[in-house]
Amino acid sequence: MSFFSSRWVDAPQNATEAGGLPAGFRASGVACGIKPSGASDLGLLVSDAPETVSAARFTRSGVLAAPVLLCQERCDLAGLRAIVANSGCANAATGRRGLDAAAEVQGAGALAAGVPESAVALASTGGIAHHLPVDRVVSGVAAARGGLAADGDVALAEAIRTTDAFPKRVSLEVELPSGSVRVSAQAKGAGMISPAFATMFCFVQTDAALAPETADLLLGVTVKRSFDRISVDGQLSTNDTAILMANGASGVRVAPESEDELRLGETLDAVLRQLALMIVHDGEGAKRVGRVVVRGGHDLHVEGAARAVADSPLVKAALHGGDPNWGRIAQSVGMALPGTAPLPFDVEVEGIPVCSGGVGLDHDEAALAEAVRRDEVEYVVGLPGQGHETEVFFSDLSTEYVTINAEYTT
Amino acid sequence: MSFFSSRWVDAPQNATEAGGLPAGFRASGVACGIKPSGASDLGLLVSDAPETVSAARFTRSGVLAAPVLLCQERCDLAGLRAIVANSGCANAATGRRGLDAAAEVQGAGALAAGVPESAVALASTGGIAHHLPVDRVVSGVAAARGGLAADGDVALAEAIRTTDAFPKRVSLEVELPSGSVRVSAQAKGAGMISPAFATMFCFVQTDAALAPETADLLLGVTVKRSFDRISVDGQLSTNDTAILMANGASGVRVAPESEDELRLGETLDAVLRQLALMIVHDGEGAKRVGRVVVRGGHDLHVEGAARAVADSPLVKAALHGGDPNWGRIAQSVGMALPGTAPLPFDVEVEGIPVCSGGVGLDHDEAALAEAVRRDEVEYVVGLPGQGHETEVFFSDLSTEYVTINAEYTT
Repeated sequence: MSFFSSRWVDAPQNATEAGGLPAGFRASGVACGIKPSGASDLGLLVSDAPETVSAARFTRSGVLAAPVLLCQERCDLAGLRAIVANSGCANAATGRRGLDAAAEVQGAGALAAGVPESAVALASTGGIAHHLPVDRVVSGVAAARGGLAADGDVALAEAIRTTDAFPKRVSLEVELPSGSVRVSAQAKGAGMISPAFATMFCFVQTDAALAPETADLLLGVTVKRSFDRISVDGQLSTNDTAILMANGASGVRVAPESEDELRLGETLDAVLRQLALMIVHDGEGAKRVGRVVVRGGHDLHVEGAARAVADSPLVKAALHGGDPNWGRIAQSVGMALPGTAPLPFDVEVEGIPVCSGGVGLDHDEAALAEAVRRDEVEYVVGLPGQGHETEVFFSDLSTEYVTINAEYTT
Repeated sequence: MSFFSSRWVDAPQNATEAGGLPAGFRASGVACGIKPSGASDLGLLVSDAPETVSAARFTRSGVLAAPVLLCQERCDLAGLRAIVANSGCANAATGRRGLDAAAEVQGAGALAAGVPESAVALASTGGIAHHLPVDRVVSGVAAARGGLAADGDVALAEAIRTTDAFPKRVSLEVELPSGSVRVSAQAKGAGMISPAFATMFCFVQTDAALAPETADLLLGVTVKRSFDRISVDGQLSTNDTAILMANGASGVRVAPESEDELRLGETLDAVLRQLALMIVHDGEGAKRVGRVVVRGGHDLHVEGAARAVADSPLVKAALHGGDPNWGRIAQSVGMALPGTAPLPFDVEVEGIPVCSGGVGLDHDEAALAEAVRRDEVEYVVGLPGQGHETEVFFSDLSTEYVTINAEYTT
């Protein structure tokens, strides 16, 4: 299977790739004129079934974009039927005018989908502090409505790209014990990535029948193991949004605590982890993906050390250069744990022990140099004690990242 | 005066630049063979007066280099008489062997300076997890002893450079109410810079007579306002060290809470702030220096927001590109203050209000574009409430930073 390309994701045994959206979902994408380039910038997703249930997660930032505020304040997040997503403008730090703009777009989405406004979620990405060209977006929603199609996930994934080097989506046919269901997902993200429980965007659809509580549980758990564990640049966005929609069109009901739920959960877990890794891989200019695993006896220490390693520009630059400089792992771990010296930590790089009890070990330097030039590089850090473990996936830091972000027009 | 070049430092009115070290101090620098390039890599500083008092500050990292551990465990930090400083090797994560190496170097320093071992501080900078070539360093200390000179601060500042693009030092003649004293200082630092109360290295000498408590107070206060407020890359080092030495050779006694203490404190404050700014300015590949000032009603919010802005690779890349993208200020402030939305924050860039109450303001875009292309760019963030204020100085993020750190040999 080509989608599940990372060694850090267990490809689900019961799933095969299949094009298009699950039955009852339609999507489209159009260029409505937000982006000066004329590229596709508006996507619409609609679920035709009234019994559709949903779940959502958003950024924890103290500065929330208008579409996030609107979703949280004016949507029935367990009963979403449509999503209007745009790129080219984040509609953040835009105040009352931004909220009014979002409400107009929501109204247009409701009209297009034939559902109440509270069933329409919005998601925006692009520059902060710019106003949404509402008239163009509203016209775009009408145009997008005309293009709605069962294979519109391709156009939707295209419409939500900003600096993304490639679109990120998958469609699967999944064999559950009670029958076959479909799962599809579209994501975007390349920079300003350190989600606190959602990525920039990830939209997931299934024709399985789920209770709202099940949808919420499955999205919550799988987001925590995917978009919550990645960092391109340690920068939490104002607009991160993840939405799962389930319409029941397959007739397969996934009951709580059933084998069906377990299998669907495994599939969603693999899909979201792979999409998250694709975002890391696409991390503006990134060449390699790192994974840091930290184990130890203290929950906060383990999390802090993993984040410090993943977010260190020195570790990231070494990863980019294929440089076996594990001293920067030691430095970032020490920074995360002030006042703990002397800290008896262990470090393994690609399975090669390089540090034990805080002291460097003799090792095969040629083997290490070869190992850190691979596409995926794994660092395992051991802290004192046991019982806690976490992981963070991160991209390297390239000159291209700097160029992109020094020149990305505001 | 050419040293005090930043608009963010008040040049002391009572000081003039003067070459060399204060009376009774001698220094030197040699190439002892730590650096493969053959460049200068070992510095020695000696105070001849037995009554010399001192104060020191070190990194708070949980991973402390051997020289830092040695200083903390085996030195009389209030009575230091000599410093042996090397570049080219940090002697960190080197365990017992590293501590033994440091002890040998300390012994050589004691012999060279004619003082007890406990009066010799060590400071090392360079790659982590490499062993110090002890024999070369010990021979180097003997050679450095032969070169000790009253104008050896130039050679000392040279010997402690790693990726520093330029040496950082100053010598001043300071008029205190009770008489004239000398102050000199040497610093190094360009990357792995986010000191928690010291920079990579800063050595300060004066021939004023200070009680140890006064030395400790003056160093503590001025370090907090200088090296504690800068970030190149948000990365706390394992080796940061700041040492103040006062030998009383001028005969001018600086009594606690005297006008002399105030004036000397002002001078040290200006010196350390300017040196800290020079480190930021030298931030591997840096083109511009930013200053973020955050004001508000909550101490931790103010500090967290300032650090988040200063350490954001997106803000830094925009600073590098001369991009008036204040949306990234909004994003990083929001990230620092999760769960506070909607956050009514204000932003001014170079005195131009661009955001009020969390909402973007119309402003003169041409004036803003011109302002962010200056060498020093100031951002002022207002959070709700009042009573707290902090500042952080930071370098931009350049492609050169990435190149340096992707290729810096381990």
